[in-house]
Amino acid sequence: MSARSSPATEIQLIKSIQRLSSKFAPSRTRTVLSIGDDAAAFKNASDFLTLVSTDALVEGIHFDLKYFTPEDIGWKALAVNLSDIAAMGGRPLYFTTSLALPKDTNFRWIERLYRGMLHLADDAKVFLIGGDTCSSPGVIFLDLTIIGEVRPSEILTRQGARPGDALFVTGELGCAAMGLEVLRDYPKLAKRFRKEIRRHLRPEPRSHIGRFLASRHYVSAMIDISDGLSTDLYHLCEQSQVGAIIDEAKVPLANIDQKASSVLSKALLDYALNGGEDYELLFTVAPEMKTKIPRSIKTVLIREIGQITGETGRCWINRQEGRQKLLPAGFDHFS
Amino acid sequence: MSARSSPATEIQLIKSIQRLSSKFAPSRTRTVLSIGDDAAAFKNASDFLTLVSTDALVEGIHFDLKYFTPEDIGWKALAVNLSDIAAMGGRPLYFTTSLALPKDTNFRWIERLYRGMLHLADDAKVFLIGGDTCSSPGVIFLDLTIIGEVRPSEILTRQGARPGDALFVTGELGCAAMGLEVLRDYPKLAKRFRKEIRRHLRPEPRSHIGRFLASRHYVSAMIDISDGLSTDLYHLCEQSQVGAIIDEAKVPLANIDQKASSVLSKALLDYALNGGEDYELLFTVAPEMKTKIPRSIKTVLIREIGQITGETGRCWINRQEGRQKLLPAGFDHFS
Repeated sequence: MSARSSPATEIQLIKSIQRLSSKFAPSRTRTVLSIGDDAAAFKNASDFLTLVSTDALVEGIHFDLKYFTPEDIGWKALAVNLSDIAAMGGRPLYFTTSLALPKDTNFRWIERLYRGMLHLADDAKVFLIGGDTCSSPGVIFLDLTIIGEVRPSEILTRQGARPGDALFVTGELGCAAMGLEVLRDYPKLAKRFRKEIRRHLRPEPRSHIGRFLASRHYVSAMIDISDGLSTDLYHLCEQSQVGAIIDEAKVPLANIDQKASSVLSKALLDYALNGGEDYELLFTVAPEMKTKIPRSIKTVLIREIGQITGETGRCWINRQEGRQKLLPAGFDHFS
Repeated sequence: MSARSSPATEIQLIKSIQRLSSKFAPSRTRTVLSIGDDAAAFKNASDFLTLVSTDALVEGIHFDLKYFTPEDIGWKALAVNLSDIAAMGGRPLYFTTSLALPKDTNFRWIERLYRGMLHLADDAKVFLIGGDTCSSPGVIFLDLTIIGEVRPSEILTRQGARPGDALFVTGELGCAAMGLEVLRDYPKLAKRFRKEIRRHLRPEPRSHIGRFLASRHYVSAMIDISDGLSTDLYHLCEQSQVGAIIDEAKVPLANIDQKASSVLSKALLDYALNGGEDYELLFTVAPEMKTKIPRSIKTVLIREIGQITGETGRCWINRQEGRQKLLPAGFDHFS
């Protein structure tokens, strides 16, 4: 279905979103006001911290209408925000949407976007409480703000890593970037890369793992991998004022057979180090706690890939050919 | 200064925003984590409700680089969000920004945008705690989410208006729309419409009036006028399941001399009824409380313009030529 034709009025649109949202997402007894007023309102839980994060998806930058369905866009916009709350060890509660759309955007297309978003909202038990909808002179712009909560004793920041801590990562890295490359450059091979394509279109936020790790106090620092392992490891090290060294052989790569991988433009390790949008969790654990980390949680593998060092802001990788500098070469919007 | 040239890297940009934000805005003792992690975190005040609202500004829709300085854009983006918290009777606390920019956006230009925003943030005592910055394939998008708080006994919604309540409005209506018309169509007359132009570029949110009215329990329902009096009155009536009748002669018009107004395309009343972006407050008061409403608060006039009726969803205006239907003819992004 084309995104553009038969426009909606703003009032029709708000009512439709309200209807969809009340049907899909779980309401909360704490909610005092939802969509339809100047602001949403909810009751605070006094023994928790409130978490807030915001992440936008922009047409032509984060998604292409050639291969994203409206449901995929809605899903992904929420998933990337849920991932930020997971990375804090928090529980997601509410979100708002801000949507700028070309005037001729099809009304049904917008409903489908919200359906995809609210489907994930229902799974994740988060509730859409407000938003803004306006016209755009060009592309589609979708910004979400997510609100969550965490006990002060359980919050996981980027700041707690200490030299000697072990470095862990969830899942396989590089899949989303690989999926994107196939969609863009080899659409005929889509069937052979179905899993990797799904990782690009419908990332699964690691909410359950984030909560598990936080509630057990295993972790000293955590970040989600949105820009690529090399860049997000650098962010974590900078905030903790430490360095890191990882082992090439331990980095969990996409599970692709050699025949399939031969069509790709880069080595599997390149996707894993510098491919963005994996939305896995990267975290550090004090040496004495290391053995407590399970090898997997609900089918998602957890792998130890290296160690934190005292060399502030410097990251290294042990490769077959020796130790090399690991530069932040993941996605940068302005480079 | 042109918005486009000499691009910044994402890391440079985040650091610069962090530096500016720590210099400008008041920090709060409640803030646990600000810019630089996956999410911001702050302590809850248990006896308050949390308020959340989001509003975007899009280049070519809400602002034009021909006559908006970057400082104006930053200011206005925050002002329209502060207005939403004012309309709830709340106190603003924190905000996040989500900015999508063409890759070649000038770094100094972005800093100037944040300077304008943080200047108002400082006045309003709100604190920038997080955000997202990404590239845009076309125009500039700037979405803000604001978080505020209000005591449960003081929250003012759109839902409390009752038949017989008096209808009040702050300030003069139609100025912002008039200012926009002059900027667009008669730039040579800018000097004669300096005040109206300023109302379009740098609206003043009625935060103080919102808090004053809420704390004294004078008001039964409130909304801010962002789309135009006719449309926002309709929103308020719909949410309260009431109707309204206003008097043409009582609507506060822009204070323009006849010579100046003769160049405009519409009558002053048209701007007042259907011109958007005034960010004044429209509120209802039970008849027995009416006399308590002051005639002005800090130089902003407050005028009674009509009454709430029991005719659900119907609005009327008493004009010289008799009673007429008042249809929601303010700004609609999709009509």
